[in-house]
Amino acid sequence: MKNSEVLVVGSVAFDTIENANGRAERVLGGAASYASICASYFAKPAVVAVVGTDFTQEYREPFVRRGVDISGVEIKDGLTFHWGGSYDADFNTAFTKFTDLNVFKDFKPVLSKEQQNAKAVFLANIDPELQLSVLKQVKHPRLVACDTMNYWISSKKEALLKVIKQIDILFLNENEARLLTGIYNLIAAGKWLLGKGVKYVIIKLGSNGSMLVSHKGIAQLPPYILEHVHDTTGAGDTFGGGFTGYLASLKNWNSLHAIKRAMMIGNVMASFTIESFSVVRLAGLTQPVINKRLKEYTDMLRFD
Amino acid sequence: MKNSEVLVVGSVAFDTIENANGRAERVLGGAASYASICASYFAKPAVVAVVGTDFTQEYREPFVRRGVDISGVEIKDGLTFHWGGSYDADFNTAFTKFTDLNVFKDFKPVLSKEQQNAKAVFLANIDPELQLSVLKQVKHPRLVACDTMNYWISSKKEALLKVIKQIDILFLNENEARLLTGIYNLIAAGKWLLGKGVKYVIIKLGSNGSMLVSHKGIAQLPPYILEHVHDTTGAGDTFGGGFTGYLASLKNWNSLHAIKRAMMIGNVMASFTIESFSVVRLAGLTQPVINKRLKEYTDMLRFD
Repeated sequence: MKNSEVLVVGSVAFDTIENANGRAERVLGGAASYASICASYFAKPAVVAVVGTDFTQEYREPFVRRGVDISGVEIKDGLTFHWGGSYDADFNTAFTKFTDLNVFKDFKPVLSKEQQNAKAVFLANIDPELQLSVLKQVKHPRLVACDTMNYWISSKKEALLKVIKQIDILFLNENEARLLTGIYNLIAAGKWLLGKGVKYVIIKLGSNGSMLVSHKGIAQLPPYILEHVHDTTGAGDTFGGGFTGYLASLKNWNSLHAIKRAMMIGNVMASFTIESFSVVRLAGLTQPVINKRLKEYTDMLRFD
Repeated sequence: MKNSEVLVVGSVAFDTIENANGRAERVLGGAASYASICASYFAKPAVVAVVGTDFTQEYREPFVRRGVDISGVEIKDGLTFHWGGSYDADFNTAFTKFTDLNVFKDFKPVLSKEQQNAKAVFLANIDPELQLSVLKQVKHPRLVACDTMNYWISSKKEALLKVIKQIDILFLNENEARLLTGIYNLIAAGKWLLGKGVKYVIIKLGSNGSMLVSHKGIAQLPPYILEHVHDTTGAGDTFGGGFTGYLASLKNWNSLHAIKRAMMIGNVMASFTIESFSVVRLAGLTQPVINKRLKEYTDMLRFD
């Protein structure tokens, strides 16, 4: 499967999380961590990020184990980005306790020659101006996917719209779609975004799966159902990384069929992430374990 | 298709509705109206309800057109149940302005000899003590499905649990499932309800489709996606009526396969109801129009 490269640009961080299942202190987090480790099951990912000198070997281990190229993770004097938050019983809303950006504050992604030739790019949730700078550096990607968040929609909408004009796939959640477009109906919001130049709009619906709006068709797919949710941190990043990694592995990713399969893979891979804190579950999967859930998922949606 | 009978017991009413799309004044509403008219596409329904002398011929027309037997709709001196409400932009929450129960206040369903022999029964959302009285009157139904609402969960929980012990299928929405069980996770809440004796728990997820919890399996199915929602009143009743009517038409309804198809049919039929006020759209369908949406739905969920 790992015949393609996917470049992941975003945060590699520490998370301190409290929820109904307990507490995780300074565990590996960050959008680029979840996305690249997930993508590793489908393609060969490389990460561009920045960490501090406190990012010790134990934090590198999951990347190394999954064959993620972290030579592009710059080590700067200072501390690694550290996010602290807690969750309600519903796991759908995170309450931020602190956001210590530390060395991430001055993150300026500079791609190596090899990275500039990346065939597929996943721009994880970072400042859209940094996303634009990455887009300037990559030469002729076959596929660019991008995530964002409400903070950038509110503070850097124009830069974000410039990003959206240049990418193939946009990931955002329900609230972000409504905030960005000013439109309540998600299909109508998705069509508004298509009008801004993106080819596929993927609206992440949390525990209700995900929705696709594109010129080729619309779809809503359910989640892989779990009875026991441990922690939802990183579920969306996992979705985006699996989605992009799977498409990067295809000869022709630009079809409704491929996009729907990518959604299914994103939904199923996210189900592993939420079974543990950090990437503990995600980084320890095998192909048969993944295939079992994919089969259960397609079986659930068979009516014949 | 119409080789089976399904008895629908519940409210036949007038609705006065205001939402972003306009206002509908004293239009045909009531859970039993939506459920029976929807069921008519799959089985031969009969309604047990009560109306006032103001329930004129024009309100009977959609039932007659769809071949719904309304000889069991008692006409009492007085006014028909009249509900007034409005919706927010999201259509998911109804704000009740008035609930004039009128003749419905003293509704006591008394089944005819023929109705007592009904093979399938849909107990629409009414007082669980009335639902129990119907269950006493029916002799040997092959299939009993039941809907409820938060009001009965709060005020008549014990009676409701007695109902749940005796039925095959329970419909409720997310909030009702949590309120009734005290459990947040919907799968866990569904399993709690299975422990109370019901065979299949169907959790209606509004614009996110529906979920099944049963001893034979769990599933979550997406909605049929609509870009333009006109009014969501009656969507859940339509779901329940289509679900039950479809199962009533089957020789063996008691399988995971049949239940999943019934969910699909409920999801798709509800999409018609929300395209107009009242039953305007729902009562005017044809089999090809329904089949087209069913095919679009299954196509959306194909990955091969």
